[in-house]
Amino acid sequence: MPEIRKDPVFGRWVIIASERGLRPNEFRGGPGPENPYNCPFCPGHESETPPSIYTLYADGAENAKAQKQKEPDWRLRVVLNKYPALVARGRVGSVADGMYDRMDGIGSHEVVIETPCHDRQLEDMSVSGIADIFKTFVLRVNEIKKDPGIKYVMIFKNFGRNAGASLAHPHSQLIAMPMAPIRVVQEIDGAEAYREENGDCVFCDILRQETVYKKRVVGENAGFLAITPYASRFSFETWILPKKHESHFENMPPELAVDLAAIVKSTIGKLHVTMEDLSYNLIVHTMPVQDPAVEHYHWHIELMPKLSLVAGFEWGTGFYINTVSPEDAAWMLNSAKKYKL
Amino acid sequence: MPEIRKDPVFGRWVIIASERGLRPNEFRGGPGPENPYNCPFCPGHESETPPSIYTLYADGAENAKAQKQKEPDWRLRVVLNKYPALVARGRVGSVADGMYDRMDGIGSHEVVIETPCHDRQLEDMSVSGIADIFKTFVLRVNEIKKDPGIKYVMIFKNFGRNAGASLAHPHSQLIAMPMAPIRVVQEIDGAEAYREENGDCVFCDILRQETVYKKRVVGENAGFLAITPYASRFSFETWILPKKHESHFENMPPELAVDLAAIVKSTIGKLHVTMEDLSYNLIVHTMPVQDPAVEHYHWHIELMPKLSLVAGFEWGTGFYINTVSPEDAAWMLNSAKKYKL
Repeated sequence: MPEIRKDPVFGRWVIIASERGLRPNEFRGGPGPENPYNCPFCPGHESETPPSIYTLYADGAENAKAQKQKEPDWRLRVVLNKYPALVARGRVGSVADGMYDRMDGIGSHEVVIETPCHDRQLEDMSVSGIADIFKTFVLRVNEIKKDPGIKYVMIFKNFGRNAGASLAHPHSQLIAMPMAPIRVVQEIDGAEAYREENGDCVFCDILRQETVYKKRVVGENAGFLAITPYASRFSFETWILPKKHESHFENMPPELAVDLAAIVKSTIGKLHVTMEDLSYNLIVHTMPVQDPAVEHYHWHIELMPKLSLVAGFEWGTGFYINTVSPEDAAWMLNSAKKYKL
Repeated sequence: MPEIRKDPVFGRWVIIASERGLRPNEFRGGPGPENPYNCPFCPGHESETPPSIYTLYADGAENAKAQKQKEPDWRLRVVLNKYPALVARGRVGSVADGMYDRMDGIGSHEVVIETPCHDRQLEDMSVSGIADIFKTFVLRVNEIKKDPGIKYVMIFKNFGRNAGASLAHPHSQLIAMPMAPIRVVQEIDGAEAYREENGDCVFCDILRQETVYKKRVVGENAGFLAITPYASRFSFETWILPKKHESHFENMPPELAVDLAAIVKSTIGKLHVTMEDLSYNLIVHTMPVQDPAVEHYHWHIELMPKLSLVAGFEWGTGFYINTVSPEDAAWMLNSAKKYKL
């Protein structure tokens, strides 16, 4: 049973999940699968994962009921993580542990197997295939949030060894948790303070400024703008923002998911052409699921390539040193013609 | 000229330092030195670093004047970083850049070359040799803080490839900066809120609770307690706390530096025995240098071994998943008898 513990100084919650230490890891010499013959996410190995929660078939049919048997012709599956950070059952609420607080690790941890193809990376998939992934995120979040005990759903994808991915087969993850994480709360509070001072949503202001300035724009279509942010923490850090103000990711209509897929495909493609041995984290930043729509917060995606390992200085301070300016990064990414939108 | 930019959402400052992208890196296939024959930190190569700011000689003599010439018989040198994150000259104060804020990257970036021996790691040095390193930190911070424009001095050591170290020769770093970094401010604010609610310093309370509970203690001597903290973010994360309340690291008297050296030697030794291929970040957490002594904040050292790479989930949320409980970590570290205090 995972446990959630609260740091008494920061109010930061930490999941202590000893079971996750057991998971296979093909990148660090562990016993993990390395090819389609022993990959649990490949077709024919469906029984090696927990039962699927949602399946999208090749013909477009869907099945939202748990499937334990072998499933032919699927093109996307959602399953529970075999080594979950959080689990469905446990006591609700925190208890004192001496001067500290802890609670049972209640929530859920789902894996989206994005394609049956072991080696097909996101930027090589079709726009409609990528759109299916984002539509699945929307579907799952709207399902998960029916449980009023779930306050936040973190949606993320780790790609490559430097980004902490433990399996090569294309997948992303959703972790549903009983509280909003501290960094999310700080981001929303910061955006609220900006709006109080400046009268508008900070992300809407960023969209306007970057559209005029142009030198940090790395992609644009009807629905989205991709930029290297002004105060990029990492070299080639990229944000993808919906042009229309919306605080909750899970309110995205299906047609907008197609625009999102197109700009994600283009942006990751540019990153891949620009950097050899790319690793990245893709994270959806959105409001806590039980909160109402707000004017001051605007959901977006942060794409963080992992070029160098974050060193001690950054950890201790939250004060980052970036050796590639966002203007230079945008120029280099836009020189990667192959993936130009 | 490095530039400091402010993120408009978080108020987080980021250093954009393109020159640092040029530094050698022996761990990532770069042209960096790999042995004492071409290491700029080894004896005989003093002219390859910027002039020394402070030198401690083998006979115990000191020289606080800049030395450009070859220096024989030194046992510790402080030099400016050849690829600094921040530099001494520039305009003071921030300027608007459209909707954003930035300022010149004013400050300093010093390197402490801890020993002339290329291959001698911290835990293999003598206690008095390690104490010299901490006494040098104290000396340098007290010198640097005479400049009223410097608000914070970050003291840290990166060891091993996973922790971001770019040179193998034992060294640590001091970065002096014109503002207190956001994570430091949040930590101090959190400690102040704790004291308002509970009446005492949170770190003094932690010292009391851990001394009674014992299962998270990994070292103790007259001056310090080493623990695996209750809400450890990383497996084998360790904090070293002075037993006597003190908000500012730079007020440490020389005799306490000897106790600190002994417990640091023991703790890193235990980490090294427990983990093969150890990488770690050692960070001194202390008050901003121009601030007066306070009752609510207590300086300490955080030692963060880098076992696994931090994945996307942790980045996006500040919500960490740790697969080794601090109680298990302490038990394993205490089984490393060789370094038992």
